[in-house]
Amino acid sequence: MAPIRNAAVIFAEVPTGYPEAGKHLKYVQDRTIDLDTVDVQDGIVTKNLVVSIDPYMRGRMRDADKKSYSFEFTLNEPLQNFFVGKIVKSGNTNFPVGQYVYGMGVYEEYTVHPKASTDHLRLLSEAQLKAGLQLTTWVGAAGMPGQTAYHGFYDIGEPKKGDTIFITGASGAVGQIVGQLAKREGLTVIGSAGSDDKVKWLKEELNFDHAFNYKTADVKAELAKFKPLNIYFDNVGGDQLEAALDAADNHARFIECGMISQYNERDAHGIRNLFLVVAKRIKLQGFIVFDKFSDPEFFEGFYSKIPKWIVSGELKIKEDVTKGLEKAPEAIIGIFRGNNFGKAVIQIAEDN
Amino acid sequence: MAPIRNAAVIFAEVPTGYPEAGKHLKYVQDRTIDLDTVDVQDGIVTKNLVVSIDPYMRGRMRDADKKSYSFEFTLNEPLQNFFVGKIVKSGNTNFPVGQYVYGMGVYEEYTVHPKASTDHLRLLSEAQLKAGLQLTTWVGAAGMPGQTAYHGFYDIGEPKKGDTIFITGASGAVGQIVGQLAKREGLTVIGSAGSDDKVKWLKEELNFDHAFNYKTADVKAELAKFKPLNIYFDNVGGDQLEAALDAADNHARFIECGMISQYNERDAHGIRNLFLVVAKRIKLQGFIVFDKFSDPEFFEGFYSKIPKWIVSGELKIKEDVTKGLEKAPEAIIGIFRGNNFGKAVIQIAEDN
Repeated sequence: MAPIRNAAVIFAEVPTGYPEAGKHLKYVQDRTIDLDTVDVQDGIVTKNLVVSIDPYMRGRMRDADKKSYSFEFTLNEPLQNFFVGKIVKSGNTNFPVGQYVYGMGVYEEYTVHPKASTDHLRLLSEAQLKAGLQLTTWVGAAGMPGQTAYHGFYDIGEPKKGDTIFITGASGAVGQIVGQLAKREGLTVIGSAGSDDKVKWLKEELNFDHAFNYKTADVKAELAKFKPLNIYFDNVGGDQLEAALDAADNHARFIECGMISQYNERDAHGIRNLFLVVAKRIKLQGFIVFDKFSDPEFFEGFYSKIPKWIVSGELKIKEDVTKGLEKAPEAIIGIFRGNNFGKAVIQIAEDN
Repeated sequence: MAPIRNAAVIFAEVPTGYPEAGKHLKYVQDRTIDLDTVDVQDGIVTKNLVVSIDPYMRGRMRDADKKSYSFEFTLNEPLQNFFVGKIVKSGNTNFPVGQYVYGMGVYEEYTVHPKASTDHLRLLSEAQLKAGLQLTTWVGAAGMPGQTAYHGFYDIGEPKKGDTIFITGASGAVGQIVGQLAKREGLTVIGSAGSDDKVKWLKEELNFDHAFNYKTADVKAELAKFKPLNIYFDNVGGDQLEAALDAADNHARFIECGMISQYNERDAHGIRNLFLVVAKRIKLQGFIVFDKFSDPEFFEGFYSKIPKWIVSGELKIKEDVTKGLEKAPEAIIGIFRGNNFGKAVIQIAEDN
């Protein structure tokens, strides 16, 4: 066979505010791979089927000399994120051709994973495949965002039946799972989102006790309708974090998952009522789910429950699937504007 | 006997910024008590010897309709705070005349404590008196501020040998104890204070590894001289809290004891880098030592160690004693300006 196209989305320039398609993130087609001659050694080659879009990616779009919890993207190289791929060539008997793998991948059509990278990939088992989840879900509710919801809610939130929880970004990949876990545990669940459609879905499909559009509602007034907050699951920071501090009960737990409202702002919003952390004895704790990736017990607990609940319909999920890698730059930028409705994911190729 | 003077410091007006002596806090002399005829019932009367000045008192100078963790002061009534007094009249055999009590008291020369109030008072035992502490110390290092340091440092800070800790308000009632507990536990201790004299004392007398004057030093540059912070003991909030977030290591613990820099500001300082709580997985936790007041084990641990260490000199203390209740308004206001050097306390009367 001759070399075939291996299109990719490239990190072309470090953005200072919102990234722009074609400038900071570029779709490029003039790359090839020759599957016959590529030297796989003891690694594998995957045909990439789906790749995830997650807010934390904004933090990776930075200068190489700035440290953070995630590796920065390399300039002029493709973006990376969680993916599902099918093995098309293998030099490793643990990863046979034809099997599906998931883990950290690359925004391109085919990827050569050296042995060191395969150590961090997992095979989708026969049982997992038979469960019947869409492949996209293994990077969503049954993947990193689902793990983020599960870890943050249980381990940091310390939920108790009867508690009141407020979730921002509630229709997003993480928020939608947190809200449903909280309903399961008998909490009163309040969510905010950025459109009336999302709010309607939270109320009617996910049975949130209350939901509102933070762009048009008075956040403080909405929260004042309920008992003081015992838990706040923060995906956005900024004004809504301030409102949650005002509405918090004594000894509230603030699960600090992300502050997407701040990621693209050059001048971050100052939180002016942080003194309430003292007066109300609030625990405000940040976490990164990657810290749990070396904990087999955590994965066992997660994978024994979440995929099953999704299949049975106990856990409803909403995914916002964009087809085609060429649309990825716009789709990535869209999540910082709240354009996605549900878990954002790119379908790179059909599974055939 | 005829009625005698019972001067007091009155809460005369709710302040909006810094309180002023003679306006918001008034010393008044035209009050009397008749020790012969006062109806003590099953309570006691104390001659008040020392009364504490603590930053949290600013929070009690508020309108009665605002809720907080501490009871508000009552307009036109005397201020209240921790005190030591001598029992001069008693209707309760548990509290014999001539004994010393400590607990919550009143900014006046003599106080009638009804039975319900005596339930929250403690007698200074023979052993405690023999230990030889100054009476002022029972409202300082061996009282609420010492308990604040002890609880915050151990229970929220989770200190480990080799950790780096930064303490603001380091020469104050709480900070000076935290720093010395941290040295005992093998931590690297950095402190900031508001004058060169205080800085010198922290370095030379308390053996802090480093100390600096936050008014003249570049806080970020000072913190950058050491390993990233594992623990931040926050007494001040504001700019130094921002600098501590910048200087924090992953998984740092922020012990949020107070934010004195914000108490008298109408427009609180916005914390602009709170996103670092997520990126660095910081636990930022507020606490109020009053929550431990119903925990006998906590008091047992505290009183079995701290007074002994003070007597032996293992724990050095510095108190800023103002003599005379008439000087109390200025002295209270002074702690918000950082005028005190060490634990601020009023000596109301000599023990005779």
